[in-house]
Amino acid sequence: MATDWDAFEEEARTLDAADPLAHTRARFDLPDGVLYFDGNSLGPLTHEARRVLDRTVSHGWRERLIRSWDEDWMDMPSRVGDLIAPLIGAAPGTVVCTDNTSVNLHKALESAVAMRPGRDEIITDVNNFPTDIYIARSVAERHGMTLTAVKASQIPGAVSERTAVVTATHVDYRSAHILHADEITPAAHAAGALVVWDLAHSVGAVPVDLAGLDADFAVGCGYKYLNGGPGAPAFVYVAPRLLAEASQPLHGWWAHDEPMAFETGFRPAAGIKRFLTGSPGVLSMKALEAALTAFEGVTVDQLRAKSVSLTEFFVRMWDEQLQTVGFSLESPRDPVHRGSHVALGFAGGKQLVADLADRDVIADFRPPDLVRFGFAPLYNTHLETARLARKLAELASAH
Amino acid sequence: MATDWDAFEEEARTLDAADPLAHTRARFDLPDGVLYFDGNSLGPLTHEARRVLDRTVSHGWRERLIRSWDEDWMDMPSRVGDLIAPLIGAAPGTVVCTDNTSVNLHKALESAVAMRPGRDEIITDVNNFPTDIYIARSVAERHGMTLTAVKASQIPGAVSERTAVVTATHVDYRSAHILHADEITPAAHAAGALVVWDLAHSVGAVPVDLAGLDADFAVGCGYKYLNGGPGAPAFVYVAPRLLAEASQPLHGWWAHDEPMAFETGFRPAAGIKRFLTGSPGVLSMKALEAALTAFEGVTVDQLRAKSVSLTEFFVRMWDEQLQTVGFSLESPRDPVHRGSHVALGFAGGKQLVADLADRDVIADFRPPDLVRFGFAPLYNTHLETARLARKLAELASAH
Repeated sequence: MATDWDAFEEEARTLDAADPLAHTRARFDLPDGVLYFDGNSLGPLTHEARRVLDRTVSHGWRERLIRSWDEDWMDMPSRVGDLIAPLIGAAPGTVVCTDNTSVNLHKALESAVAMRPGRDEIITDVNNFPTDIYIARSVAERHGMTLTAVKASQIPGAVSERTAVVTATHVDYRSAHILHADEITPAAHAAGALVVWDLAHSVGAVPVDLAGLDADFAVGCGYKYLNGGPGAPAFVYVAPRLLAEASQPLHGWWAHDEPMAFETGFRPAAGIKRFLTGSPGVLSMKALEAALTAFEGVTVDQLRAKSVSLTEFFVRMWDEQLQTVGFSLESPRDPVHRGSHVALGFAGGKQLVADLADRDVIADFRPPDLVRFGFAPLYNTHLETARLARKLAELASAH
Repeated sequence: MATDWDAFEEEARTLDAADPLAHTRARFDLPDGVLYFDGNSLGPLTHEARRVLDRTVSHGWRERLIRSWDEDWMDMPSRVGDLIAPLIGAAPGTVVCTDNTSVNLHKALESAVAMRPGRDEIITDVNNFPTDIYIARSVAERHGMTLTAVKASQIPGAVSERTAVVTATHVDYRSAHILHADEITPAAHAAGALVVWDLAHSVGAVPVDLAGLDADFAVGCGYKYLNGGPGAPAFVYVAPRLLAEASQPLHGWWAHDEPMAFETGFRPAAGIKRFLTGSPGVLSMKALEAALTAFEGVTVDQLRAKSVSLTEFFVRMWDEQLQTVGFSLESPRDPVHRGSHVALGFAGGKQLVADLADRDVIADFRPPDLVRFGFAPLYNTHLETARLARKLAELASAH
């Protein structure tokens, strides 16, 4: 059996040697000796984020103080939005970085509902991430609407003239199943409904073409594959054709056309800035802005190819080794339908994840028995993937 | 005239020598040669914030990665809330640090309005900070209510059985006028209305006793006198007697009783955590948590005494010198009614503030002609105050 693992590691080295993204790993300040497969929960530190944070503290905050707002920080939400835009198929000026994903989803849903008066239903994926379901239900209840939760595959058949808005997460947070955005979006539109996509598990690893999909709204987070740091600010996208009429209820001064005019009447900014609220957390947003430089010179196709190569390699080791020691594959077998993480079922998964952490192998656990491994195309390697699988086999045998 | 200024500086040295808060200035990492009177817009860096941010990046993020959530970050919103609580007369467990002030005001107002069904009016101070007015108007419009904006002094007479909620900022952001919270709060309660106080220009410098006032809700920001850094997260307070029934509409997973159980049904946290939304910006919140250590061993009475001593000294120099060179006093003359900043009117104030900045004297400008100086009791000195006044006199004479 050791021979099998040696062969996998040998193959991994060959794959890594041919990897066009091998050079981007050096942009990360990874801890020594750690196998990190949790970038889908918290991306690791980049050298640039550390450098920029130091500079922001020493220069922007300490030295320049209030002057830094004009010199750097005021435009940051739009600037960071424009850095995220190409990763999700969005045009410049259609994305801002702001708040967290839950708040942004609330704003997008409220805005969408207001555009579809008379309709009394919001549809969501029953397997959507909990916060998305909570937020959608709260919006529905406040407007006397029904929240209908169905399987993603049933959404196209469920939309009707009652449906104001459909919201779902593009990549399922547990299974990594990629939803058929190209079926759900036009089906919703055909029924006159709007669509809000949550890109939390897509952006930075799985291609999304919001413009091509003709999507209406999207939200997503900055702390997973974008590596923006713990609790990094999130983003919101609004289709250009909707921006003029889109109105979200949190009319903070940063959504005003001229925040520094201190007018008593609210005049929303002409563009996507109307989805801002109050002052952004500069330190957190600077870390995200810096981290996004790790994507410089990298195409979305390259990200996807590397991601698929890593998950395919891992699934092949599952095929040949891990399924015989108690692991079930809970992600799609076909990479076309699989995002950038792989979920395995394992009885006692919670303890397994703790045991892995004791051995400096970081993954995460989702109830009831799911062990989740994120494969980040910018820094994970095939050799790490082989070592992860080998460690899983060893631990499972000892369990 | 030089003799007069020398005499003021001599007096300042005497006052500083007797200042019981003289030692707290060393907790700040102030830039050399700068006179900083804008702590009411952006508090300066503390040594502890820099140290903690470095540690958070190097250890919490880089080394411990996802494990830091359990080890440190999950409890941070409550922990930081409990550090802020004694500064505003709030009991432990009644304040959380989260989002920005605009978002928190929206949550507090929505919550308050839901508790007063059938009432169709929100009352606010006509001189309230713009974002507060925008947020209040948006909430009012969404509920088919009227927003009534009157002078603060007229609020007690304006509340009626129509009024669901009164919201105002405790210290006026322009004039520094301290509102009569002890008249407005009981007047609102007598009419059956709830009160939401914005403490942006109070917390850390001007005493507030939320429990003593029997206030219902309060919000405030972390980046002014709390020195939490640019765009530091804000806070929200809910009176314990209201917590069980208070419900805000942004049902993010962090407001759930067990966020990590990933339940599909929303069960709000029992206490103040139900006012959280999604993931907090850790880097920004860690800076605030660290900055709050600058208040260790300092009482609210000491903060107030020092603040009054600084503004009184400044107003005395205005009396004797500055009013003769074109400055008008736009803040209350009586310190009982004055917060921790002083606003002076000056024709061409915008250019004056720019000229001051060129000379490393930092203040800020508010339209149309207001020059605003924040006096932060933890680090500003009387000698700095004398030098500020002297510089103003010099520049005004040259204007």
